[in-house]
Amino acid sequence: MKLTLKKNAYGKNAINLSKIIRHPTYHEFRQISVNVSLEGDFDTAHTIGDNAKILPTDTQKNTIYALAKEHFTDSIETFGLYVANHFINNNPPVSQVTISIIEHPWTRMAFDGELHHHAYVGGASEKRTTTITQTADSVTVTSGLKDLLILKTTDSGFEGYSKDQYTTLKETPDRIFATQCEATWTYTAQHPDYTALFTKIRETLLKTFAHHKSLSVQQTLLAMGEAVLNENAEVSEITLKLPNKHHILFNLEQFGMENKNEIFIATDEPYGYITGTVSRE
Amino acid sequence: MKLTLKKNAYGKNAINLSKIIRHPTYHEFRQISVNVSLEGDFDTAHTIGDNAKILPTDTQKNTIYALAKEHFTDSIETFGLYVANHFINNNPPVSQVTISIIEHPWTRMAFDGELHHHAYVGGASEKRTTTITQTADSVTVTSGLKDLLILKTTDSGFEGYSKDQYTTLKETPDRIFATQCEATWTYTAQHPDYTALFTKIRETLLKTFAHHKSLSVQQTLLAMGEAVLNENAEVSEITLKLPNKHHILFNLEQFGMENKNEIFIATDEPYGYITGTVSRE
Amino acid sequence: MKLTLKKNAYGKNAINLSKIIRHPTYHEFRQISVNVSLEGDFDTAHTIGDNAKILPTDTQKNTIYALAKEHFTDSIETFGLYVANHFINNNPPVSQVTISIIEHPWTRMAFDGELHHHAYVGGASEKRTTTITQTADSVTVTSGLKDLLILKTTDSGFEGYSKDQYTTLKETPDRIFATQCEATWTYTAQHPDYTALFTKIRETLLKTFAHHKSLSVQQTLLAMGEAVLNENAEVSEITLKLPNKHHILFNLEQFGMENKNEIFIATDEPYGYITGTVSRE
Amino acid sequence: MKLTLKKNAYGKNAINLSKIIRHPTYHEFRQISVNVSLEGDFDTAHTIGDNAKILPTDTQKNTIYALAKEHFTDSIETFGLYVANHFINNNPPVSQVTISIIEHPWTRMAFDGELHHHAYVGGASEKRTTTITQTADSVTVTSGLKDLLILKTTDSGFEGYSKDQYTTLKETPDRIFATQCEATWTYTAQHPDYTALFTKIRETLLKTFAHHKSLSVQQTLLAMGEAVLNENAEVSEITLKLPNKHHILFNLEQFGMENKNEIFIATDEPYGYITGTVSRE
Repeated sequence: MKLTLKKNAYGKNAINLSKIIRHPTYHEFRQISVNVSLEGDFDTAHTIGDNAKILPTDTQKNTIYALAKEHFTDSIETFGLYVANHFINNNPPVSQVTISIIEHPWTRMAFDGELHHHAYVGGASEKRTTTITQTADSVTVTSGLKDLLILKTTDSGFEGYSKDQYTTLKETPDRIFATQCEATWTYTAQHPDYTALFTKIRETLLKTFAHHKSLSVQQTLLAMGEAVLNENAEVSEITLKLPNKHHILFNLEQFGMENKNEIFIATDEPYGYITGTVSRE
Repeated sequence: MKLTLKKNAYGKNAINLSKIIRHPTYHEFRQISVNVSLEGDFDTAHTIGDNAKILPTDTQKNTIYALAKEHFTDSIETFGLYVANHFINNNPPVSQVTISIIEHPWTRMAFDGELHHHAYVGGASEKRTTTITQTADSVTVTSGLKDLLILKTTDSGFEGYSKDQYTTLKETPDRIFATQCEATWTYTAQHPDYTALFTKIRETLLKTFAHHKSLSVQQTLLAMGEAVLNENAEVSEITLKLPNKHHILFNLEQFGMENKNEIFIATDEPYGYITGTVSRE
Repeated sequence: MKLTLKKNAYGKNAINLSKIIRHPTYHEFRQISVNVSLEGDFDTAHTIGDNAKILPTDTQKNTIYALAKEHFTDSIETFGLYVANHFINNNPPVSQVTISIIEHPWTRMAFDGELHHHAYVGGASEKRTTTITQTADSVTVTSGLKDLLILKTTDSGFEGYSKDQYTTLKETPDRIFATQCEATWTYTAQHPDYTALFTKIRETLLKTFAHHKSLSVQQTLLAMGEAVLNENAEVSEITLKLPNKHHILFNLEQFGMENKNEIFIATDEPYGYITGTVSRE
Repeated sequence: MKLTLKKNAYGKNAINLSKIIRHPTYHEFRQISVNVSLEGDFDTAHTIGDNAKILPTDTQKNTIYALAKEHFTDSIETFGLYVANHFINNNPPVSQVTISIIEHPWTRMAFDGELHHHAYVGGASEKRTTTITQTADSVTVTSGLKDLLILKTTDSGFEGYSKDQYTTLKETPDRIFATQCEATWTYTAQHPDYTALFTKIRETLLKTFAHHKSLSVQQTLLAMGEAVLNENAEVSEITLKLPNKHHILFNLEQFGMENKNEIFIATDEPYGYITGTVSRE
């Protein structure tokens, strides 16, 4: 029986780059991590070790730093589109380029209501993300956010579920709903204002999460996805991953005290994991 | 335009379980992390918050612990198959169950050539993995390993690659090849001896990596995949992920010394990322 | 030669607790991790396995959850003081209690300038910390923050340093200064407003970092420590740990481009590590 | 009130270095992470930003790579001693040097009972460590290991402990004892065979852990420390940190099943934390 090399790809991951953009009245500081992945006609590298068609991952890395000087001036989407185009146009063996970028947020310090000229605070878990996939015929832009920790202390319950011999969970009309939200959405619009849209979609996600009367994580997930699509014609589809980071009521009754939904064990594992994609038909 | 809920799933992740199996002459200690994921007819949970068809992820967790008493006695594949079957048979709304298991290895201590009765050492980064996917019609078993750190100090080069204006990498016939190997393969055999096959495939991966005269990571990847398929008729396909964890020659020349491939900067990021799937036609 | 058991301690670490405090107009959500450590007359537990004087770490954990209901209503310092007092008063063998608390910040969401009643965003790397050490005679409160990522894009240089045969670093009047600040300070005041002081000290640290014309990390460290002591009579001593998280100028010259302090390689390792304690004489 | 700069130090951390040592019949591969910390007369760097006495941390890093070529040929202790001596002899302002080294273990692959010439497996959590502290008058060598995961499935109990109103833990004569052992010991011998001693002490720690009839973690800790001191005259003192990584009996009774110490919840947090130092009088 003959063996075949099927899907294969290579590239450089975790190209960590920072940039200072000097504006007239302040410095803008940006930090990103870029992944490059190339697919194409690389069979001879695998079969006979002929690297003639292989653009080294070290060169890919250099390219990101070099192109960032002129072309990383705006959103990660705009930069990713430029980079993807560069790789596919300059490397005939390449049939598909995937550029993934994570942006690490830094915000300017503010003192007495004034933003400082050149000092920043970082460290938020939440990251802005984008993935650009380009072939000879098409370009897809899927953007999003990840590791956004959000929590609500009420307006969330879980009742009326299926029960079997292993069910011990108590139904509750009022629990903590905590999640580490990951969202990715696909743009259909050509060259929209990616940063403005990101800000608007993020706000919609937060607002829907905060205001929803949640009967289940599943219900809130759909509500968040629908809100984003209803309010943004530029988006064709959104995928949400909402791990349920459980805060478990601590049993105070054993010490003669009542726990009126006050004291919880904050846990990391195990966790529920609820995912879904909402799309226009 | 109408919105639709497309692919969606839910389940419990990171169900961390350990078990003591008491054999006549020694104790066997096993530790696993189980993920359960269910797909099926859960639309009303999303649309109107009706949880009647939802088996809580807490119940899923309890089920894993309860079933482990009688049924986790052998390989993670055998346990995973039992568990997948349980969920699909007992929950009519479920159309697909995915059970993923990671096993954390513990090895018995040995003193003076004798294995100890009940003491173990753990902590290896390498994990054995399996994913069972079951629907009404089919069961797929994909097993593997991940986070296997392997390295060779020679018999690896990288030359003759494509060059452009951003290329600075020097060609070399002799470099360190270090990777954090992830491999997953699909079994076609029904009820093979999963543990014996795992041990044999792992050995083939190591041996091929060690003995290959590597002209590129790509070439070694294909060689490893082909060797596994050639030696194991039970396997139909294998996917390998071989990040290139660079050990970069330190420039000793600047201090008037020669670096004869001796002293390296061990780096984590950025890293090359080479992946590929080898399959029977 | 006789052997002695010298310093020894035991306790429970990573007691992860969350609490909802229901105020008339909003919910307050708090999340902390508590470590308890006890020292005292525990020799017989070590020597003959007599546990009669040992308060199990499981009981310590229960105690934290139980006491949190009534007594975790304000700062982590106030709660830590109550807890330390509880353990030393109720356990005669204990000669010293150390309670360490890390607070994970959650901030209320705001929409259209209004704070939401019960929805929060978390995920900041920065944590507020305190360590309470209580003996029969004394109580010490050392508070602080850690994992505060701060960065400035200018007003930082490094020149005029000692050089030897292994020096290759170029002197520069203008570099990025990035650090993951850890600060701990000791209070002399009895029962001050810990939260107000924390806010004020944090602001002083940020402001000094932002405004200082830094000739070295060492110089900025001393300036930050002095500013805190000068402005806060309640503090007797402050220790700062300022790892130098290097952003290294990428060599664009090799591609015929000039890098006017714009494009950097963001690195995690290796990192400089500068520490110092500033104290009142 | 005058402010003083008290204890301060600076240096480079996480200098990640790998080395190939070419022996006649095989390659030896070593990987270490080195921290350098200098203390001394650096006041003017802090007070007026005068860096004349400051050896840049970048130079420290270069020095480690350069010295490793000739001098990292044996144990991490021998290399650390050479490096510490280099820094104190060549930098008059330095009064104390601390060199900490962590070694990441790589073991040669073996096929059919034969060790391979140049292929290795890594990834063990356990690390060998050393800290060398040198002043004008003295050198101290403290070596050890960390992140050694060990576990026993029996011969461990916990009974007869102190109880109060918050105690819910059940006494048990038979439980899992799992720990992530950290041990550090101080050598009094001059230039012993550090690697032979390390191997012997590690074996004693494992053997004592395995064979001890444990009435408490505290008792096993003392037994492990005493065994090391009793068998190794070269060691004056040993400190052990034995976090109690709980495997908690899962309640199968609620499902009508008996849990005969078989099925456990493997937890990471919270964890007991037991530490102690054993010393010669």
